Amino acid sequence: MEPNLTAVCLVCTLKPSPAESSSDLLGGQLMAALAAEGVAGTTVRVVDHDVKPGVEADMGDGDEWPAIREKVQAADILVIATPTWMGHMTSVAQRVLERLDAELSEKDDLGRPSMFDKVAVAAIVGNEDGAHQITAELFQALNDIGFTIPAQGVTYWNGEAMGSVDYKDLEETPEKVDSTTKSVAKFAAHVARTLRIAPLPAPVE
Amino acid sequence: MEPNLTAVCLVCTLKPSPAESSSDLLGGQLMAALAAEGVAGTTVRVVDHDVKPGVEADMGDGDEWPAIREKVQAADILVIATPTWMGHMTSVAQRVLERLDAELSEKDDLGRPSMFDKVAVAAIVGNEDGAHQITAELFQALNDIGFTIPAQGVTYWNGEAMGSVDYKDLEETPEKVDSTTKSVAKFAAHVARTLRIAPLPAPVE
Amino acid sequence: MEPNLTAVCLVCTLKPSPAESSSDLLGGQLMAALAAEGVAGTTVRVVDHDVKPGVEADMGDGDEWPAIREKVQAADILVIATPTWMGHMTSVAQRVLERLDAELSEKDDLGRPSMFDKVAVAAIVGNEDGAHQITAELFQALNDIGFTIPAQGVTYWNGEAMGSVDYKDLEETPEKVDSTTKSVAKFAAHVARTLRIAPLPAPVE
Amino acid sequence: MEPNLTAVCLVCTLKPSPAESSSDLLGGQLMAALAAEGVAGTTVRVVDHDVKPGVEADMGDGDEWPAIREKVQAADILVIATPTWMGHMTSVAQRVLERLDAELSEKDDLGRPSMFDKVAVAAIVGNEDGAHQITAELFQALNDIGFTIPAQGVTYWNGEAMGSVDYKDLEETPEKVDSTTKSVAKFAAHVARTLRIAPLPAPVE
Repeated sequence: MEPNLTAVCLVCTLKPSPAESSSDLLGGQLMAALAAEGVAGTTVRVVDHDVKPGVEADMGDGDEWPAIREKVQAADILVIATPTWMGHMTSVAQRVLERLDAELSEKDDLGRPSMFDKVAVAAIVGNEDGAHQITAELFQALNDIGFTIPAQGVTYWNGEAMGSVDYKDLEETPEKVDSTTKSVAKFAAHVARTLRIAPLPAPVE
Repeated sequence: MEPNLTAVCLVCTLKPSPAESSSDLLGGQLMAALAAEGVAGTTVRVVDHDVKPGVEADMGDGDEWPAIREKVQAADILVIATPTWMGHMTSVAQRVLERLDAELSEKDDLGRPSMFDKVAVAAIVGNEDGAHQITAELFQALNDIGFTIPAQGVTYWNGEAMGSVDYKDLEETPEKVDSTTKSVAKFAAHVARTLRIAPLPAPVE
Repeated sequence: MEPNLTAVCLVCTLKPSPAESSSDLLGGQLMAALAAEGVAGTTVRVVDHDVKPGVEADMGDGDEWPAIREKVQAADILVIATPTWMGHMTSVAQRVLERLDAELSEKDDLGRPSMFDKVAVAAIVGNEDGAHQITAELFQALNDIGFTIPAQGVTYWNGEAMGSVDYKDLEETPEKVDSTTKSVAKFAAHVARTLRIAPLPAPVE
Repeated sequence: MEPNLTAVCLVCTLKPSPAESSSDLLGGQLMAALAAEGVAGTTVRVVDHDVKPGVEADMGDGDEWPAIREKVQAADILVIATPTWMGHMTSVAQRVLERLDAELSEKDDLGRPSMFDKVAVAAIVGNEDGAHQITAELFQALNDIGFTIPAQGVTYWNGEAMGSVDYKDLEETPEKVDSTTKSVAKFAAHVARTLRIAPLPAPVE
């Protein structure tokens, strides 16, 4: 199981703590599954912090992104957990992507983007549909920033069309969601481990 | 450089051979860059073949997908090259995704989807914008089917808004596109190689 | 209820007739609701016809798009009915959009794109999620071509995440889907009627 | 030109005033074109205000959305102006959509959603591609909330792929962008006027 891996889960619900949150629930289930794979983790509910608008690594006075950024930099695996609003990821999730945009110009000693050798996976919930599209936009943006996306790297739940049931109000986790969550953890840990052993080469300039 | 890798490029232009095609051009440049990484390749212009509508591996009488599917199965790296029409990937590219949908129920002896341990990357062109969204939808669909997406796994070119210049009509390949194409080849080869050495585990049932 | 309006429904299922189709079912329900608003209609299952790849109004030898195009030109309301595959509209629906792309350069005597004064609405089904994103891509493309999109111009049904139930296999139409379908018909007829009375001005050249 | 119409432009740049903003520039050009059509307007740079996360019309203590919401309620035409970050609309634009989500449950005396009889159009800029996809997501969400989308309801500019030029730094407005902006204003004013004269019917419950 060596090397030891770590993960950070950025929960992108619109609801500050301590409100119950479906994305926090599914994100937490994925982090538990990662723990079972030997991956130590930490979770941040982003809306509890003052993440300033902008596309720099540090937007200055009062910006709480730099502390979150440190956690992402320290982790091998990034989990983005988001609910679905209007069929889209939340404004909080999009803000995380905007702040990560700065990483494209941060390079290591080998000239590699700062997020290389990390993997990204997603956990998406919604009372209405949207998981496939949110997956698409998350993967495109995170991959652009430098994250590798392991096979079948998303767990999700959307209710039937025009419904209003939330994931957190289901009597139990659907079996298929549970097994998918555990599979995502296995694939993420596997690919993160291989990238630790065999780091990506530098881009061609 | 061992193990030896192979790639297949599915060019999803709407234009049958021998018409000149911008997506064929960029796809070919990516295949050349893969060759420089020691990856042997083959290219298929999908529209030259009668790929039937449907979501089965073989739609029967006259269906030419099974022969293309064999090439995908034999390859370590799948390249999807597509132009942008109405801001979207082509109907030909979407048809490829529909036919690959069948692979979700094809499992190997270990219970793993048939496309595991393969990586997918993209090459996108257009006289108008669309590359980011096409990247998103390709990565989401191909990842769902079981492909791993290596960091920064897309090369692309779109012209300035409301323009009409095609990639194939540029006087020369923009330097930034050229270096991106070569980088994508390096990342794809690297991740494909690591997955050959360290195959993905089976999903949790 | 004057002027008399007409609608055409392009059903974009992957399954040729006479196979049962969920998108054909929901499209038919929307056409029935339009009939109740005084809108006469005709339905085409596109996959039954040889619609050639390309972006011209007539792709020549054997192309069956021109006959479908005539129906679109004659109608005040275009309904696109599509299932969800890989979270996307079908290759058949995307092909319809590609063929409609030609209309951007077709102008009437007043210099207006050929699809002006028409409205477009959608009917989307899927055993998995996708309706919001398909709505997005359909509205963007059809609006670009010149269609006006009436308020709340889509009816849809997606099953719960990771499910496999089809719309056609539901014991009955969900009440909310039924009322939405009827509302879409009312809004489409209303806006189409106002555009017949007060046609759009010509674009600025 | 009667009835008299009004428009509100929500500029969704990430940059607080008085920073120069490309989306503010294109949004302003669209508002000027609307003024030439007899539409009086007001512009809000959303990031200058403390719009709280959430999906209610009023999120309470310190929330500055209610004042913006009043302007939207008073207007016939809503313009969303947004830059492109990571290929997506900004977190600020998505937050506007989330806050407008509350309008779905606000009904007038006739049982119609509060945003009925209004039209929505968009102005999108970016040094990299994204306009078509942002258009898609804006139109889908705004249409869902109750806005009608007039034919060809977007003006936009994206630079060539992998570029870094901003719209505000162009030496002059490209002619095609300028004529498109003016056309969008004409179509928006026309459809808004017809909806004032002939309001939409109530949805079927």
